[in-house]
Amino acid sequence: MKSFNYYNPVRVLFGDKQKYIADILKADGHSKVLLVYGKNSIKKSGLYDEIRKILIDANIKFIEHGGVSSNPTLSHAREGVLKIKDATAVLAVGGGSVIDESKAIAAAAASECDVWELYDGKKPTGALDLYVILTISATGSEMNSGTVLTNEETKEKLSFNSPLVYPKVSIINPALTLTLPKEYLVYSAVDIITHVAEVYFTAEEHPKIQNRFCENIIKSVIKTTDELLKNPDNINARGEFALCATWALNNLTSLGVGEYSFPNHMIEHSLSAIYNVPHGAGLAVVLPAWLKWFYKNTKNPQVKRFAKKIFNEKDAKEGINAFEKWLQKIGAPTTLKELGIDRNDIGKITENIVKVAPRWGLENIYKTNVVNEILNLA
Amino acid sequence: MKSFNYYNPVRVLFGDKQKYIADILKADGHSKVLLVYGKNSIKKSGLYDEIRKILIDANIKFIEHGGVSSNPTLSHAREGVLKIKDATAVLAVGGGSVIDESKAIAAAAASECDVWELYDGKKPTGALDLYVILTISATGSEMNSGTVLTNEETKEKLSFNSPLVYPKVSIINPALTLTLPKEYLVYSAVDIITHVAEVYFTAEEHPKIQNRFCENIIKSVIKTTDELLKNPDNINARGEFALCATWALNNLTSLGVGEYSFPNHMIEHSLSAIYNVPHGAGLAVVLPAWLKWFYKNTKNPQVKRFAKKIFNEKDAKEGINAFEKWLQKIGAPTTLKELGIDRNDIGKITENIVKVAPRWGLENIYKTNVVNEILNLA
Repeated sequence: MKSFNYYNPVRVLFGDKQKYIADILKADGHSKVLLVYGKNSIKKSGLYDEIRKILIDANIKFIEHGGVSSNPTLSHAREGVLKIKDATAVLAVGGGSVIDESKAIAAAAASECDVWELYDGKKPTGALDLYVILTISATGSEMNSGTVLTNEETKEKLSFNSPLVYPKVSIINPALTLTLPKEYLVYSAVDIITHVAEVYFTAEEHPKIQNRFCENIIKSVIKTTDELLKNPDNINARGEFALCATWALNNLTSLGVGEYSFPNHMIEHSLSAIYNVPHGAGLAVVLPAWLKWFYKNTKNPQVKRFAKKIFNEKDAKEGINAFEKWLQKIGAPTTLKELGIDRNDIGKITENIVKVAPRWGLENIYKTNVVNEILNLA
Repeated sequence: MKSFNYYNPVRVLFGDKQKYIADILKADGHSKVLLVYGKNSIKKSGLYDEIRKILIDANIKFIEHGGVSSNPTLSHAREGVLKIKDATAVLAVGGGSVIDESKAIAAAAASECDVWELYDGKKPTGALDLYVILTISATGSEMNSGTVLTNEETKEKLSFNSPLVYPKVSIINPALTLTLPKEYLVYSAVDIITHVAEVYFTAEEHPKIQNRFCENIIKSVIKTTDELLKNPDNINARGEFALCATWALNNLTSLGVGEYSFPNHMIEHSLSAIYNVPHGAGLAVVLPAWLKWFYKNTKNPQVKRFAKKIFNEKDAKEGINAFEKWLQKIGAPTTLKELGIDRNDIGKITENIVKVAPRWGLENIYKTNVVNEILNLA
């Protein structure tokens, strides 16, 4: 066990609790908020009207900032900051993209700097209080201090972490995910598994308790995804899936494991920065390819353990195959081709990845030849 | 999955980090603290001198309040409150007893009420900041908002919960547990397992992810206890054991499980209130007896699952036997007799338990005949 620091002050309200949002905002002294949301899904589902009514009835003013895209953009976040004015908090209603952009807005508004500076190394000096009503369980952003944003001009997708952007309250109501299209459930599953996999495979140390903790999440995601594809209305499976998403990236998996890295996310961020593919779809393509490269080059025993514990396969390669087959079964893409990405683009993608690798602390491993090899496996 | 609220703002510093305690206190604006500790163990280990020196060198004044006993008492907590004066924080250096008494002192001092009122139903209105340097991993008090205290006069051992008494910072350095006598390691193991078992067996619902989470902790405790009894210097095992203790009672195990209860703790608290037996020793006697009664009367499938997953036994009763044998193997008492409690006292103990049952919300199940039956199985 390596030493660690852990701090996660997010208050999680799990269940049918969005009705309490006005009381929560008032209790914290907020009477005007920036209401951030995505495209049309919350309007279609009725959640938009529900939240508006709750806020209006409670006399809480709100400035609307809809239209967050699934890879949230710098320009849209900048617009959000301009709208803040005298609002004292940000209310994010949506999934990881909406939350991430909300973190950007909350931090930039209080730090009085340009949004992109924060993703470019500047530490935020403050952040408006952030409240979340989650509609897609996937990124874990509802209970962590990270945020990812895409700069459309430079085609960079970067992240920053700060305890200042932990949501004050996150309402996780699994019932709100009932209207999620099937493909987004699939992408979410892949995102969650990848969050766990990054730690599980790349960590310096593998305490047994953490191995089992990670395997528990992966098993639960596989099981509940299978169940939900058969019966999308299984609310218990929705709940368990939601807990997996939150646990997968709220720092629990990494306690005591020492250093670890996010190579799959690094590679995928370049894919979605260039091609705007859904994050989970990109990860479904990257993770099996990365695993093949990783096992071939490191023979890391965690791959064999993964094969055994998750797919009951004795051989590491058989485990990776089983994983790839499962991804195909649930309808996830597993090749660049399925993402509509031409093999001839690999050089360009590699260049983008190698350029951002230093920001991920991965420039010593992920050089041109390695990245090329991984992308060719995809 | 049942709905839940989760909030746990404790900052955990895991590893060799007690040297930072003065910086932490200063950063929070504290220049005078009440230093709470137990009997002689931290003096023997050298930790007492180390902490004193750190505080003196940093010019942080401290009032000493040593002598906390292993079942901390009301009278001693009251003495602590009287010593507070202009100290603005409490620094607990010890195990669960020291932390629990520190929570009592911190809350009573700021709420300007008698300590016992807080255990008797009064809500604290404030609490001094509490900092912890943990020396025994067992109760989980370092990362939760509960505290237990014994009223020596009335022979009552009661608890209260309040978010106000969450430690601000808990330093968990597994190396500080190296000097712990073997029997306390054993009692700690039983305490941790019981914390998990209460939820695992009594919860309304058993989401798979929580079943596996609980089993992970129980397996890790069994494995690391076995290792540490052979080789007490195995610092990795110490670390994993410490994480188990913290996870076992920081609310994670109970997310989504609905209502649950603490029957074993209720019964044991009466034993230790009357006979002052170590909490873990009392639990080692109570838990197997309670499990036998519980399975006989409810046929709850969790017992069979426990047998299978933890001891690889198909039969529930065989699982309980295997658990009892393991307790005996590690040197834990499993009968009232071994605790020095006479069978003829069962009536008196039952009376005490039935009297406090309403405070645990368990008066409808744990009536005289039931408690008698359980104690007779012990």
